[in-house]
Amino acid sequence: MESVRALDALFRPSSIAVIGASRTPGKIGHEILKNLVEYGYRGRIYPVNPKADEILGLRCYHSVSEIPGTVDLGVVSIPARYVLDAIDDLGEKGARAVAVISSGFSEVGERELEEELVRRAHERGMRVLGPNIFGVVYTPARMNATFGPTKVLPGSIAFVTQSGALGIALMGWTITERIGLSAVVSVGNKSDIEDSDLLLWLSEDEDTDVILVYMEGVKEGRRFMEVARRVTPRKPVIVLKAGRSARGSMAASSHTGSLAGMDAVYESVFRQTGILRAYSVEQAFDWARAFASRRVPRGTRTVIVTNGGGAGVLATDAAELSGLDLLDPPEDLKETFRSYMPPFGSPKNPVDLTGQAAEPEFEGAVRAALEHESVDNVIVLYCETAVTDPEGIARAVLRAAEGTDKPIAVMLMGGERSERAADLLNSRGIPAFPTPERAVGAVAAMVEWWKRTKNL
Amino acid sequence: MESVRALDALFRPSSIAVIGASRTPGKIGHEILKNLVEYGYRGRIYPVNPKADEILGLRCYHSVSEIPGTVDLGVVSIPARYVLDAIDDLGEKGARAVAVISSGFSEVGERELEEELVRRAHERGMRVLGPNIFGVVYTPARMNATFGPTKVLPGSIAFVTQSGALGIALMGWTITERIGLSAVVSVGNKSDIEDSDLLLWLSEDEDTDVILVYMEGVKEGRRFMEVARRVTPRKPVIVLKAGRSARGSMAASSHTGSLAGMDAVYESVFRQTGILRAYSVEQAFDWARAFASRRVPRGTRTVIVTNGGGAGVLATDAAELSGLDLLDPPEDLKETFRSYMPPFGSPKNPVDLTGQAAEPEFEGAVRAALEHESVDNVIVLYCETAVTDPEGIARAVLRAAEGTDKPIAVMLMGGERSERAADLLNSRGIPAFPTPERAVGAVAAMVEWWKRTKNL
Repeated sequence: MESVRALDALFRPSSIAVIGASRTPGKIGHEILKNLVEYGYRGRIYPVNPKADEILGLRCYHSVSEIPGTVDLGVVSIPARYVLDAIDDLGEKGARAVAVISSGFSEVGERELEEELVRRAHERGMRVLGPNIFGVVYTPARMNATFGPTKVLPGSIAFVTQSGALGIALMGWTITERIGLSAVVSVGNKSDIEDSDLLLWLSEDEDTDVILVYMEGVKEGRRFMEVARRVTPRKPVIVLKAGRSARGSMAASSHTGSLAGMDAVYESVFRQTGILRAYSVEQAFDWARAFASRRVPRGTRTVIVTNGGGAGVLATDAAELSGLDLLDPPEDLKETFRSYMPPFGSPKNPVDLTGQAAEPEFEGAVRAALEHESVDNVIVLYCETAVTDPEGIARAVLRAAEGTDKPIAVMLMGGERSERAADLLNSRGIPAFPTPERAVGAVAAMVEWWKRTKNL
Repeated sequence: MESVRALDALFRPSSIAVIGASRTPGKIGHEILKNLVEYGYRGRIYPVNPKADEILGLRCYHSVSEIPGTVDLGVVSIPARYVLDAIDDLGEKGARAVAVISSGFSEVGERELEEELVRRAHERGMRVLGPNIFGVVYTPARMNATFGPTKVLPGSIAFVTQSGALGIALMGWTITERIGLSAVVSVGNKSDIEDSDLLLWLSEDEDTDVILVYMEGVKEGRRFMEVARRVTPRKPVIVLKAGRSARGSMAASSHTGSLAGMDAVYESVFRQTGILRAYSVEQAFDWARAFASRRVPRGTRTVIVTNGGGAGVLATDAAELSGLDLLDPPEDLKETFRSYMPPFGSPKNPVDLTGQAAEPEFEGAVRAALEHESVDNVIVLYCETAVTDPEGIARAVLRAAEGTDKPIAVMLMGGERSERAADLLNSRGIPAFPTPERAVGAVAAMVEWWKRTKNL
């Protein structure tokens, strides 16, 4: 537990020194400082640059020792050969964590330098993130200490990434996709802080509901398994593990030096420890979005409510093939469904409200399904029609979903109005998607997590 | 061939009578007329309504017989019991095709009425689309004779759908996704015009590059196979066949009365006839977009060019697992690749230009790959960085892709600027996607089509 609390300084530092802060826009040492300022970090920020007196309106210090008082977290972006001195200086100031942005360590063969970096940091009571990273974001503290995109959307998904360029690009993508994050952690060379440490800290973080890890390989396999087994029953862990194929594994090895081989071993470890493995970027974030809804899967019995027969059939296929049980609604529930549809609708599962269904029909049928004891999960499919308003349907679903914590996912398919209605649902914690298969996949992932972890 | 030419009147009519045109916005007979007018159909439009003299600025006729001159296509949206009379009237006016929007036929058990409808139409020299449909779009004729969204983007994908609500919603979705269509055909009850007829006509249509069919079942299996085998070598056919699962098949049967069962039979038919089967809505349209690029697959040897190692590994996994061969670049090509990357880049496949890669590096490496005789396909991955402009990268790829017709797909991952850059590529005929797996899937589909059809 001690090692977990040690990461407090990484995520919730009271003050940050940016060593290598730069006046030049575009330089990494400038962008990090700019993101810290613009994203609204409220602790003390100390830029350090021997040649500057002020950067971005902040007083700049010529050395770490000049900083008045203590420093909690150091963010280091200077050439590799100067990093050890920075560690010493940060130690003097009482820093408990350091994020080493700089490259030029084990990834280019400088293993000894990297080992010395960790040794010194530990001697001085510091944990090390990196080196060779783009930084760390923790939205509850309004801290964006990265040189990636600025305006990360706050939310409850923690994203840990072993890849830099991919991680930065995905940060940008979460913004346009309206995916809310609690944290982004670039782990780089994993010289000290490993996936396991982050899983432990994030599993105790009240602002994080789900942890998504892009990994090419883990360093300490046994510890990772022990930690994962403890964490997953409390908090879902989704892993996007690259290097599945023979050639992909070779590429991963030359990219981060990971032993990505033996994919079957990873697969088995994930199963045993309750980790969910995603097979694409889209899947990983779709699933994370579902878990961020804070709804609680308790079984496989699923009802699909739709206004379009074709969408219902596609969703039924996807549901059955991903392990969901489409129950035959009991007679009383069928009777209720019938009251929300014309005579040519279908109260069977998929429940076809027909194209005539408006807000009251969606609200009534979805609420009836969610409230019925025979139903564990509900999938709602709305095909945009000329006579209904997607936003109205979204609001009807929101009303129906109040008062239960059963898993629900929504598809809104159509034009711009459906896109905006999906954004509304996502911003209110109901996962919404543009295609039937993705909505089904989100619920199936929640149920799979329940299956994998209930006996751990 | 005769039957194929008979569909000319459906897609390129010289005049259209809208029987059941309405003055009331929201009514189907109003929306169809409005779409015809607003989308810019240039032939004669004759609204028919016994109680109106003018609708939407057009002179309205009280009956079909009042229309001066001939009518080429009838679009019928009146109660089922009056449809036979309308067929007779249209026959008098020389119509060669009729799209029966009206429901109330075999889908509610009125099989005899539907058979009579087809019999009369054939007697009078007309082919029947429907009944129970939302209409037909043909963008080269600026004809939108549907009550779906108006502003369909012109392009070269023909979309045939057995589902109404799903079809309309997907029409809307293609607009926001910037997917260009040549045609949208709602086939409904398929009383006369079947998938086979449409495949034949569309395969000879110069404005259509690829045919995408949502189907729950085919009516005349043997004819469909014969036609598909003739069509697919010339023009790719993608089928999204619902009813894969046992329960999905039951749902399809109650939805459109299709015998969706025996999915294994369909699967085998698709393989034998060169049809590509998509397993999700997203996949179907991703693939269609790839074929719409008019590039010609000739083999499996593929090169991945990336600026991010992680994206490269994910794409490598996806490529290998979907049957693409990631070739080891021959020495001369590696040498060229090296000239576009720093010393720590990788000229192997995936070719890692590193995060420093800007427009000249992307342009040079992508062109070298496309022009080399050992390469059949190229996948380009761009992770948005602070120091590069996604639109600039997109333009670099466009320049590199000129002069060859080898398949290429691009991933641009990042924020809004990457989204806009992807739109630019898509509008210029280079398929672009937000995730590595989707870009790989697009190329893999083209190669799979080449494999399936080269010996047909």
